[in-house]
Amino acid sequence: MSTDLTRAHAVALDAADPLGALVDEFDIAPGTIYLAGNSLGPLPRAAATAVADAVREQWGRGLVTSWNKAGWFDLPYRMGDAIAALVGADAGEVVMTDSTGINLFKMVAAATALNPDRRVIVMEGSNFPTNNYVVQGLTRWLGQGHEIRFAESHELIDAIGDDVAVVALTHTHYKSAHILDMAALTARAHAVGALTVWDLCHSAGAMPVALNACDADFAIGCTYKYLNGGPGSPGFAFAAARHHAALDQPLTGWWSHRAPFAFDRDFAPTEGIGRLLTGTQPILSMVAAQAGLELATRAGSDAARAKSMALGALFVDLMAARLPDAGFRLASPRDIAARGGHVAYDHADGYPLMKALISRGVIGDFRAPSTLRFGLSPLYLRYADIWDAVDRLADVVESGLWRAPEFQTAEKVT
Amino acid sequence: MSTDLTRAHAVALDAADPLGALVDEFDIAPGTIYLAGNSLGPLPRAAATAVADAVREQWGRGLVTSWNKAGWFDLPYRMGDAIAALVGADAGEVVMTDSTGINLFKMVAAATALNPDRRVIVMEGSNFPTNNYVVQGLTRWLGQGHEIRFAESHELIDAIGDDVAVVALTHTHYKSAHILDMAALTARAHAVGALTVWDLCHSAGAMPVALNACDADFAIGCTYKYLNGGPGSPGFAFAAARHHAALDQPLTGWWSHRAPFAFDRDFAPTEGIGRLLTGTQPILSMVAAQAGLELATRAGSDAARAKSMALGALFVDLMAARLPDAGFRLASPRDIAARGGHVAYDHADGYPLMKALISRGVIGDFRAPSTLRFGLSPLYLRYADIWDAVDRLADVVESGLWRAPEFQTAEKVT
Repeated sequence: MSTDLTRAHAVALDAADPLGALVDEFDIAPGTIYLAGNSLGPLPRAAATAVADAVREQWGRGLVTSWNKAGWFDLPYRMGDAIAALVGADAGEVVMTDSTGINLFKMVAAATALNPDRRVIVMEGSNFPTNNYVVQGLTRWLGQGHEIRFAESHELIDAIGDDVAVVALTHTHYKSAHILDMAALTARAHAVGALTVWDLCHSAGAMPVALNACDADFAIGCTYKYLNGGPGSPGFAFAAARHHAALDQPLTGWWSHRAPFAFDRDFAPTEGIGRLLTGTQPILSMVAAQAGLELATRAGSDAARAKSMALGALFVDLMAARLPDAGFRLASPRDIAARGGHVAYDHADGYPLMKALISRGVIGDFRAPSTLRFGLSPLYLRYADIWDAVDRLADVVESGLWRAPEFQTAEKVT
Repeated sequence: MSTDLTRAHAVALDAADPLGALVDEFDIAPGTIYLAGNSLGPLPRAAATAVADAVREQWGRGLVTSWNKAGWFDLPYRMGDAIAALVGADAGEVVMTDSTGINLFKMVAAATALNPDRRVIVMEGSNFPTNNYVVQGLTRWLGQGHEIRFAESHELIDAIGDDVAVVALTHTHYKSAHILDMAALTARAHAVGALTVWDLCHSAGAMPVALNACDADFAIGCTYKYLNGGPGSPGFAFAAARHHAALDQPLTGWWSHRAPFAFDRDFAPTEGIGRLLTGTQPILSMVAAQAGLELATRAGSDAARAKSMALGALFVDLMAARLPDAGFRLASPRDIAARGGHVAYDHADGYPLMKALISRGVIGDFRAPSTLRFGLSPLYLRYADIWDAVDRLADVVESGLWRAPEFQTAEKVT
């Protein structure tokens, strides 16, 4: 526990924060403390400018010529290279495209094809379940008898046996923020002849990820959480260069064709990471994501992680000091090194508590049945914000504000 | 041929144009005549405002709460209902989501599953080939021996035999603008026990489409051509209500789950058209598309088609009158009723001619090896624009401007 939990000390930490200058790069309403960046990151000021320019100049004036002149065609590759640098991949190993779920479909399919004699796919059952839904859809349609072996984090090593084709895991857990050991699990997978697909949705931008150092095979991730890319900004997909020559996935289209403007009747795959593309991408949403990527790049993953851990430690310490007996149970690893960019607490009255806290300007989120999540994103949060957030939560609890009728309704809290 | 091909007559037609008031709803640079809206529609003024608001207010201020408060979650359905009204479908039969290619994958897959004893998929070989690439990827991965039977338009009826599972055709040809007979081909398909997937990329917004009147089964389409949705705005997918109960597709995700916020481990499909969704959508690109959809709705498909045909007739007549012996060969049907929203010409020097024409402010596009395409979109083009476009083309030809060295380079013309 920190020795000094005063607000003055938090302010002093801000004054010494090497990432402090980035805070003003985000456009967050005065008085709002935004702790839901693990769900949707806030607006980088430069994103608003870039989107306005893309709309009025690139679309409005450049029109169809902007596909070349404004580099729209190349965005998946250029954005992919920027993401690659943040997740421990090399240039040419990542593309930005489509949605997280669609990319997972592609990558798990690709992995099964490279391991055709096995039928087991290991996944974490408690993971954000869209991953399960995607792989359930894939395996059902492949019709080759693939089955998902669900295991929880402590069971994973044992679940990865020599019947396993693919290990498809989320690096940082969406609810608990528990970080899986990518190096150990990938090594285990490879030792038994399996391939890995890592979901980096809750990792990219929040911490360094070492895809190539861990010898990861494939990965996917999202850009609207810690990369602050905007609502529903396209996802990304990684394939290690050693797999490119044999890379194959079901969603082939003209963007993955060797000569997209030759209009050949039949498909022939391009070389390299472009094989993961399908069709025309939502350019305005991609352009919006550039600013956030640039800020994450400027911060650097190591510095982001260091501050994220410090913010998390302060939050947990303040919760213990201010609300020791209020029914909050830490639902994330206490070990900072095992915990990602957010902190989760269970509370029997989590739903009205979060609604009341939001009414006080502290925006976190709630996941049924009882989990409050607090995203502690390092690029735009101040240490003083953390202090104020816990202070307001303590006030919500101690004043009984959360018992007010308007916070009990069943309207969804995202 | 029109009796009066003077510019004064064109101006008179504009004065009487019931859609004339829509022209100023688009932000097109003065002096530019934009004839590539069949590739990428121009910017509706309201789109710029809507995107700016979505960025600064919905994302910047509403943050994660905008998923509910700004209706982001419902956008695929609301936009889908608006599209449905333009393509002869009912509310609840269309969603806006993902890319054209990905939606084609879903719909052809869904159709094959509903016709499990057949293995032939009929497609038009000369179609925009990404459709081929998508279905080639699908059939290869299904691994059930499906094969594509390619046929050209005049061969299609005969190609649809009683071994056919799915007929997957593009309503309006991307290059020639030839319109297939949706009613007759769908009837033929149903007569032999096949299902249909119609691609409306070059139809939606340019003409009335009668999906339900034709008894179509499935359809997909794009929103960035005649619907002016912005670069890469998401596509749409239609499934006739009668197929909803048995509707199944491979790309399942949390947005197609019965209870997406219950976080159940296993997939269970929602009811209705939501089954075609997968994951989180690119919201800014969807918001951008609303303005164009509203303008298309305001115009109405019948009025849009009437003006589009009149613009096309004027263009063809002017080309015949002004450039009768310049080597242009009409590559679209001469019959206006069989021709969609653009007109194509072949010319041995099509490439430098189009580059030179673009340098004069008339933006069309070129498709290898020799095709010039002129999109005659009815919402923002004036009759006088058509007159001026042909006038400038005649000048490019007669002056020999197109022979200038800068127009001979191999840089791609989109």
